[in-house]
Amino acid sequence: MLSVSDVRQALSQVVDPELGKDIVSLGMVREVNVAEDVVRITIALTTMQCPLKQQIVDDVRARVASLNGAPEVQVTLTEMTPEERARLAGGKDRKQEGMAAHLNQVRHVLAIMSGKGGVGKSLVTSLLAAELRRRDLRVGILDADITGPSIPKMFGLTERPQSTPIGISPVLSRTGIRVMSVNLLLPREDEAVIWRGPLIAGAIKQFWGDVFWATLDYLLVDLPPGTADAPLTVMQSLPLNGILLVTSPQDLASMVVRKAANMAAHLEVPILGIVENMSYAVCPRCGQRYEVFGQSHAFDMAMLLGVPLLARIPLDPSLSALADEGRIEDCRLDGFAQAVDELLQRVPEKATVPRF
Amino acid sequence: MLSVSDVRQALSQVVDPELGKDIVSLGMVREVNVAEDVVRITIALTTMQCPLKQQIVDDVRARVASLNGAPEVQVTLTEMTPEERARLAGGKDRKQEGMAAHLNQVRHVLAIMSGKGGVGKSLVTSLLAAELRRRDLRVGILDADITGPSIPKMFGLTERPQSTPIGISPVLSRTGIRVMSVNLLLPREDEAVIWRGPLIAGAIKQFWGDVFWATLDYLLVDLPPGTADAPLTVMQSLPLNGILLVTSPQDLASMVVRKAANMAAHLEVPILGIVENMSYAVCPRCGQRYEVFGQSHAFDMAMLLGVPLLARIPLDPSLSALADEGRIEDCRLDGFAQAVDELLQRVPEKATVPRF
Repeated sequence: MLSVSDVRQALSQVVDPELGKDIVSLGMVREVNVAEDVVRITIALTTMQCPLKQQIVDDVRARVASLNGAPEVQVTLTEMTPEERARLAGGKDRKQEGMAAHLNQVRHVLAIMSGKGGVGKSLVTSLLAAELRRRDLRVGILDADITGPSIPKMFGLTERPQSTPIGISPVLSRTGIRVMSVNLLLPREDEAVIWRGPLIAGAIKQFWGDVFWATLDYLLVDLPPGTADAPLTVMQSLPLNGILLVTSPQDLASMVVRKAANMAAHLEVPILGIVENMSYAVCPRCGQRYEVFGQSHAFDMAMLLGVPLLARIPLDPSLSALADEGRIEDCRLDGFAQAVDELLQRVPEKATVPRF
Repeated sequence: MLSVSDVRQALSQVVDPELGKDIVSLGMVREVNVAEDVVRITIALTTMQCPLKQQIVDDVRARVASLNGAPEVQVTLTEMTPEERARLAGGKDRKQEGMAAHLNQVRHVLAIMSGKGGVGKSLVTSLLAAELRRRDLRVGILDADITGPSIPKMFGLTERPQSTPIGISPVLSRTGIRVMSVNLLLPREDEAVIWRGPLIAGAIKQFWGDVFWATLDYLLVDLPPGTADAPLTVMQSLPLNGILLVTSPQDLASMVVRKAANMAAHLEVPILGIVENMSYAVCPRCGQRYEVFGQSHAFDMAMLLGVPLLARIPLDPSLSALADEGRIEDCRLDGFAQAVDELLQRVPEKATVPRF
């Protein structure tokens, strides 16, 4: 009987006449199912209106039929989502894949992680980037939260990244931070990116290898919640100098953040420090400072992990407003500059070795 | 040259002598790499102390060597994580896989979703379950947030689910809510579940098909943030009656929640209503009510989606405290019972058809 890889091998000979590449590398082959008497193949077209679709289907049939012992071939057609098309378009323009990676000089890569969602990873990433930029350092942000990206909104960015012969150019923020996020590639910011793990991992690797970051003193990687595909891909395939953990005072958050810390330990990436967000609120009428999410556990967690608690960020409506208005670079928090000093002192020169 | 699937095929003949199943279905084959002159195979043992490991390695070598044109075989051993072992043990004890699914009678399945993390999905799921239980309905919670599960902590559950001949028994909360969560299976609650998408999808399907929920009026599925593997698996493989969207007043949250709504529309699952969490705070000293995260967009979003805004939950330290102490069932929020009335009226009898 034929194996799936035999069929895939045959399909990699089928070239999309419009895009000039084979349908396997274009990600158009969705499913290959080999049964006793029939081979079922699902092909995703860029559009159902594709004028050349019959040509592709005929070519697919012919290639598979030419295999030894090939049974009946059934081809099902489906359509790519707009995001998939957007990625493909990005890929089509590039001349040499992965070329950017060879030309980039990224001195330090820091991942911002929490395990739990909504504790303020993107806020901390943005504040850190803004502070580093104020020191005239060259800073980039790789938004690895593919299905829930917040970075462009924090900086008020809507421009589309441009393709260059070397790679995709990140979008520049007002103060000159280089930003790459899936939201900059979507036709509408609220479009859902309904991708399973392998596509997400692929996008992250592309944001590293196919984006022309040029020379950066710091690349900050904003991770999504959880300990699944995206954080795993970042930890395994990027040369990380360390991780900054973000937590909130909720007991629940601290449990999930400890999961993230355990993952980092497991993958041998050093944790450099902790930032607690939403630590306390200040009543706008009477000035009372109080703990909205209960008592903080950040200091205990820092002790447990043997790292410093670098900063505690209050829950402040004016901070939320700046984030919502895309003016996060205008924000200067008390004590945050010192926290960044302490963090920078702890960044090791040596990074982990990526396992691409 | 050999193909990877040829090698996998050969490996599926290797039976773990202790577990009595082949190493491929046991998920022990981690990597198969076929190069010109060498085949590299990584096998994950349940434990490195496995007394039969040499036997497994010898068998692997022999099976691959027997293939036509087989080059040198290199076998690398690694160890399963405790969670993987736990899942394997779960699988081993069960007599008939998926038997529970045939005996369960789940009348309605509701997914609680937000796209964005930390807006309070688990809180809303728990409050809803507690309210339904107060009405003497039979309620279950399937915690689909595999890498950041919060449900057991909200209910103060630490007991391990028991295996029965029919399936895994969910753990009962104090008021009798049936709960299944990956955290109940872990040796320590802060252990990280470092799984890629397919394992996560597998766990969710198992929580549906291999858990003996028995008769339930409502099964609530607490989804993780994002629009990747877990929500996709739930929407594709469970018969959903509808989705309850959870949001927070942040502009950022509303953008990501709209992504979730677009995903639901794309997969044709009806949205039944919106609950806004952290809508406002009340100063504990002066009683001032103020908007911590800025002005609410929940009503506009509800209008946009054509669904009711069912409830607005304040940011209340006493609520956080109940959640952290595992006493969420003691919480009674003003107006929440009416919100549940309205939600229940909107639950359609017909569910989506799962595409297992």
